[in-house]
Amino acid sequence: MTLPNPMTVTVLGAGAMGSALCTPLRARGHTVRLWGTPLDEDILTALEGGLPHPRTGEHLADGTELVHDPDLESALADADVVVVAVSSDGVRSIVERAAPLMGRAQALALTTKGFLRDAEGTVRLLPESIERIFSDSAAVPPPIVAIGGPCKANEVAASRPTAAVFGCSDIDVARSIAGAVETDGYRIHVTDDDRGVEVAAPLKNVYAIALGFADGLTTRTGQPWHDLRSAVFSKAVDEIADMTEALGGSARTAWGLSGVGDLEVTGLSGRNKVFGERLGSGEAPAEALQKMIDAHQTVEGVPASGLAVALASQLFDDAASRLPLLHAIRRIVEGCDDPLLVLTTAALPPLQASGSSR
Amino acid sequence: MTLPNPMTVTVLGAGAMGSALCTPLRARGHTVRLWGTPLDEDILTALEGGLPHPRTGEHLADGTELVHDPDLESALADADVVVVAVSSDGVRSIVERAAPLMGRAQALALTTKGFLRDAEGTVRLLPESIERIFSDSAAVPPPIVAIGGPCKANEVAASRPTAAVFGCSDIDVARSIAGAVETDGYRIHVTDDDRGVEVAAPLKNVYAIALGFADGLTTRTGQPWHDLRSAVFSKAVDEIADMTEALGGSARTAWGLSGVGDLEVTGLSGRNKVFGERLGSGEAPAEALQKMIDAHQTVEGVPASGLAVALASQLFDDAASRLPLLHAIRRIVEGCDDPLLVLTTAALPPLQASGSSR
Repeated sequence: MTLPNPMTVTVLGAGAMGSALCTPLRARGHTVRLWGTPLDEDILTALEGGLPHPRTGEHLADGTELVHDPDLESALADADVVVVAVSSDGVRSIVERAAPLMGRAQALALTTKGFLRDAEGTVRLLPESIERIFSDSAAVPPPIVAIGGPCKANEVAASRPTAAVFGCSDIDVARSIAGAVETDGYRIHVTDDDRGVEVAAPLKNVYAIALGFADGLTTRTGQPWHDLRSAVFSKAVDEIADMTEALGGSARTAWGLSGVGDLEVTGLSGRNKVFGERLGSGEAPAEALQKMIDAHQTVEGVPASGLAVALASQLFDDAASRLPLLHAIRRIVEGCDDPLLVLTTAALPPLQASGSSR
Repeated sequence: MTLPNPMTVTVLGAGAMGSALCTPLRARGHTVRLWGTPLDEDILTALEGGLPHPRTGEHLADGTELVHDPDLESALADADVVVVAVSSDGVRSIVERAAPLMGRAQALALTTKGFLRDAEGTVRLLPESIERIFSDSAAVPPPIVAIGGPCKANEVAASRPTAAVFGCSDIDVARSIAGAVETDGYRIHVTDDDRGVEVAAPLKNVYAIALGFADGLTTRTGQPWHDLRSAVFSKAVDEIADMTEALGGSARTAWGLSGVGDLEVTGLSGRNKVFGERLGSGEAPAEALQKMIDAHQTVEGVPASGLAVALASQLFDDAASRLPLLHAIRRIVEGCDDPLLVLTTAALPPLQASGSSR
């Protein structure tokens, strides 16, 4: 794969991660067009006014070209690489519009993370869903590069040291794009396991709710619940690895930057962890979620927990016993009684004398 | 293996973890003797006075019998299980004294963690070292059960939910002991990979210094360095898995509670993380270490980093390039220039265009 240098990169979605990626892209001298969705108008206005990005608190990289909706056609014209960085809610409609317009693109890189349910009700990984959207538009998708790993948008935007993962079934594509995007601070591990990257990314948002729950207990009781948090962490990694293998990815991906690394960063801060913290502090889920919605904070792990449970039931007859932590989180999010007991039962090893209580 | 119920358990070492284990042991109704080393006299005095344990802040489990040094013979008389819970510094001298006195014991459980250097200068895992000490005393060691996993002593002492790992090459021994010790709050995963448990436990203390370093940067700059912390976390897990396999254990152990889980808990609090935080905040290593010694805080990861580097060089010709993060931490602990650059270079993926700087 031969990319021009500099190349033209169009980023679809001016949210936190789309805008942040402009930092390494511009540092490497590429032509960068940042296209905002209709929901991004306030962000574009702020950036055009020279203000920092409202979500990352960082200024946009110098020289980034801003493009408003609906001017998608000119945004995508001559793009060598397209980055899809819209929310998982918006990905279907944006890709439907963009698919016929990116004929020249050599790769579609994906920072959007989530599972999508198709019209028949089947839950699918994002690259598969995107390929089907292209196919419905009678367009041929370029190779899809899944971007994962422990990357907070504000840190990428500020050039603080970050390890990303670029995954593509054609590893040469991942390697070429990575070579064109990497900087001293934005380093990239490449893999051919795009599926593994796409499984871990939405799941870590779900499991981060449980990490936050343990943090909330610590806050509420004034005593550390670090052992529980760490048992949850380890169990989450086990379940992500299990789901990854069942979906045709490699468990090694779950044990690396995309799984362990991304779960770690997601448990340190961010909305899913904060939502879990509220639950662990004793707030009811509906009330906690409403407060976050009122503050314009989407908690992606909540819808992802429902989709993940549905996906698990597509994969395993014994999904609930095989992935107890995932199912416990779903119950907690739905407001079950005694969430602490539900969480500990799912996260800790079973008793040797199984069935008995000690 | 048939253990009496209740059984007699002698815990050697009245420090934080030895004392904490008395909580589940007494909850299961066992006879528990807690023997203090000469260094534990202040602790025993506090406990005899009805005060909380000076290190965990928790009261000792009711009914625990306290035994002072030098009365090791009567402490070990009729012990069905012996728990070695002294510091890694003290393990050789205590085991030399205890080896001829524990003829009745059906298992030796080990919460002490570290690598030991033998008289010829070879660095060895602890169970192997203990077997050699028994052999030097012409005594036959009982099966050794390695205890690991994310267990903070204060939380175990307070019966907060904890997932431990018991590893023994004879898994039936691990299972029997676990079945006799588990409680609703102290749950145990059993494995036959005692070596894996023993590799991860000292190494996580070393890597926690680097996690703390990232936290120190966050404190110092007022900006999050979560991406770096998470890249360090993931790289640490990779290197622990690599060392584990080279020492005849299973990488799966590193990816489970003993590795990932224990690294998580060690990075949340504790002396190794705090020491690293001081370095990340800009303190010189010698100064930071002295302050902690002055406060009677042993930083086990510092000597462990030297032993781990020596062990790595026994295993690999290319140890420094194979385990870059371990070697970077050793350099940082020894006071190298530009520790941030040393850490990021080791923790982040290499550039695709290797050798070049972007």
